[in-house]
Amino acid sequence: MNSESIEIHLKLRGKIEIKPRINLTRENFHLLYTPGVAEAAQMVHKEPQALYQLTNKWNSVAIVSDGSAVLGLGNIGPQAALPVMEGKALLFKELSGVDAVPLCIDTLDSDEIVQFVKNIAPTFGGINLEDISSPRCFYIERKLRQILQIPVFHDDQHGAAIAILAALKNALKIVDKRLSSVKIVVIGVGAAGGATIKMLLKMGASNIIACDKAGILNKNDNSTMLNSFHREICFETNPDNIKGELSDAVKGADVVIGTSVAGILNGEMIKRMERDPIVFALANPVPEIMPEEAKFAGARIVATGRSDFPNQINNALVFPGLFRGALNARSKTINFPMMSAAAEALSDSISEEELSEDRIIPSVFDKGVVERVAKAVFRAAVDSGVGHIDP
Amino acid sequence: MNSESIEIHLKLRGKIEIKPRINLTRENFHLLYTPGVAEAAQMVHKEPQALYQLTNKWNSVAIVSDGSAVLGLGNIGPQAALPVMEGKALLFKELSGVDAVPLCIDTLDSDEIVQFVKNIAPTFGGINLEDISSPRCFYIERKLRQILQIPVFHDDQHGAAIAILAALKNALKIVDKRLSSVKIVVIGVGAAGGATIKMLLKMGASNIIACDKAGILNKNDNSTMLNSFHREICFETNPDNIKGELSDAVKGADVVIGTSVAGILNGEMIKRMERDPIVFALANPVPEIMPEEAKFAGARIVATGRSDFPNQINNALVFPGLFRGALNARSKTINFPMMSAAAEALSDSISEEELSEDRIIPSVFDKGVVERVAKAVFRAAVDSGVGHIDP
Repeated sequence: MNSESIEIHLKLRGKIEIKPRINLTRENFHLLYTPGVAEAAQMVHKEPQALYQLTNKWNSVAIVSDGSAVLGLGNIGPQAALPVMEGKALLFKELSGVDAVPLCIDTLDSDEIVQFVKNIAPTFGGINLEDISSPRCFYIERKLRQILQIPVFHDDQHGAAIAILAALKNALKIVDKRLSSVKIVVIGVGAAGGATIKMLLKMGASNIIACDKAGILNKNDNSTMLNSFHREICFETNPDNIKGELSDAVKGADVVIGTSVAGILNGEMIKRMERDPIVFALANPVPEIMPEEAKFAGARIVATGRSDFPNQINNALVFPGLFRGALNARSKTINFPMMSAAAEALSDSISEEELSEDRIIPSVFDKGVVERVAKAVFRAAVDSGVGHIDP
Repeated sequence: MNSESIEIHLKLRGKIEIKPRINLTRENFHLLYTPGVAEAAQMVHKEPQALYQLTNKWNSVAIVSDGSAVLGLGNIGPQAALPVMEGKALLFKELSGVDAVPLCIDTLDSDEIVQFVKNIAPTFGGINLEDISSPRCFYIERKLRQILQIPVFHDDQHGAAIAILAALKNALKIVDKRLSSVKIVVIGVGAAGGATIKMLLKMGASNIIACDKAGILNKNDNSTMLNSFHREICFETNPDNIKGELSDAVKGADVVIGTSVAGILNGEMIKRMERDPIVFALANPVPEIMPEEAKFAGARIVATGRSDFPNQINNALVFPGLFRGALNARSKTINFPMMSAAAEALSDSISEEELSEDRIIPSVFDKGVVERVAKAVFRAAVDSGVGHIDP
């Protein structure tokens, strides 16, 4: 018997389709297609920016994935990634009106992916990189951000980092601690964990311990650095040069952020944390520790990636509003001020009165949340000089 | 003041958009996106063919253009090509329900285009190559047809050839001549002209004279062959080894097919043709000779690419039904039997009684025409072993 999800997929046979913005008639055929369309083509040829007025470029994003790191399933290939990317395209349209096109591609070569995205850039207003494995994702995104004049955003990195930052800000308010002085352990230094570390550092965090498969990343121990990105992270984290395993890292930590695999945290570890432990167990679908277990061991605030527990930290809170704001400002990029504004809009969308251990982050279905993010991002794009009002 | 076409483009700001097939709700979110969508991903990972049941692949076509030969405008680039490709996507959906995605790409390198299309193939059920200049288009399409297991179709070649063949069949019925014995002059040996020659030869034409900028293609005169495709064509045409200019070629011709540029035919040339001249002047937007002038000089049947004259020979008669049929059969390719079936369906859609000098080809808006093409193509795909019933 098929699960409920398979049933709905079989019934829909595609979560998105193409919709004409006008009905084709004998009367408008020659305006919308040959010969009339030649005038639009010529206008763009003379003035490329007219593309934003005459086509859907202003509202369109390509979702590009090579299927190398799909959800928690790993490298399952571009075909298997397509249902996920269609789901993402559905969310884009439903939550923020953005027309997103899934492009699952049959190559794992980083330079070929860069070339691919560069080649399709004329068609789209922005690029959402998705489910590309780490550390390749860092190289691909950096390279594309250098080359292209449209926003390029690897959602698994920054979408996660922004949602985590928003939730953490509110969690710290509740326990009355400061980002600059708390000890934060990040488990899993891949796309999400790596970008979260970078973002928290930029926001003023000073004591982050990064933990991956080989234990605590330590600049004096090469064996802890599994790739070039780990090497880079080593020099920005672990100020006290702690060595050891995850169980050593969590000792005295104020915050533990898991972006790794199911079940690697346990109650004993939570008990060794500082007072009022904050635990984000974000592995999907099964978290690093189940919320009940973490709470039982003394965690004050627990968040997961799941919708069936309180405090769901989900990229869907970020990417629709973020791209909406960037597209509205016709931004050339998505920079740090825009990402930070998105996080702030998210955390601020819960008022002081509403804020509680079980409500540190809004739901994507809360009225006005996506719009609030979009407006903040738009404003930040304009203020930082990469976007425009009334473009 | 803007033209009517520019006005409608400015108003629409994109001729197509994305449409969800289901509304997103709190209740179905986890089925359509994480975590539920993981089950669909895993099912495809185990059995790649499930992609046709669980996603929109079954109904989707990529329209790929490098903008190197857009309408009659030449190499105006991928940006300027986008309004045209959006128009084509609109036609696809409105005429045959196919979800077509415009992908205008920023490269003119043939091998890079091949690589690009190979890379996006997992996402789509078929590939429509569009407005890629000749002779590059021949290489790119051939290569892709070798590599891919989904239909690849360069519409400027075969869409034109199929529509021309359909119209010519009916025109020959009226003048009571046979394809195997008529003398046919094809002016312009690019994508459309080249594919038309190939198709007519396969259908039994034995006396085709090909004319390009350097005059009549002649196997004993290298100067008439402007590229490797011309060289290839030389050995299959011009059985009497005629030499000279276009005016020499048309002498005694039964049929002249122009796929070239405005105004290069004149009344004097038409007068030198055989009895009952058939003239297809398909240059867009201005034909090789205006219909009135050709008629005045004695042409019995005249067709153009324009909707404001009788007998509009337009690719829009072909590609929607052709891809509909190919997708319905989940065909691995678009082969000659399928193309020939499309042409036959088009010519047969005008009954003997309806057939006249001013009605040799149906309009795309005639009831049932696209469906008729789709059914014939589906049947030919199944019968030739490249497609399936109830795939």
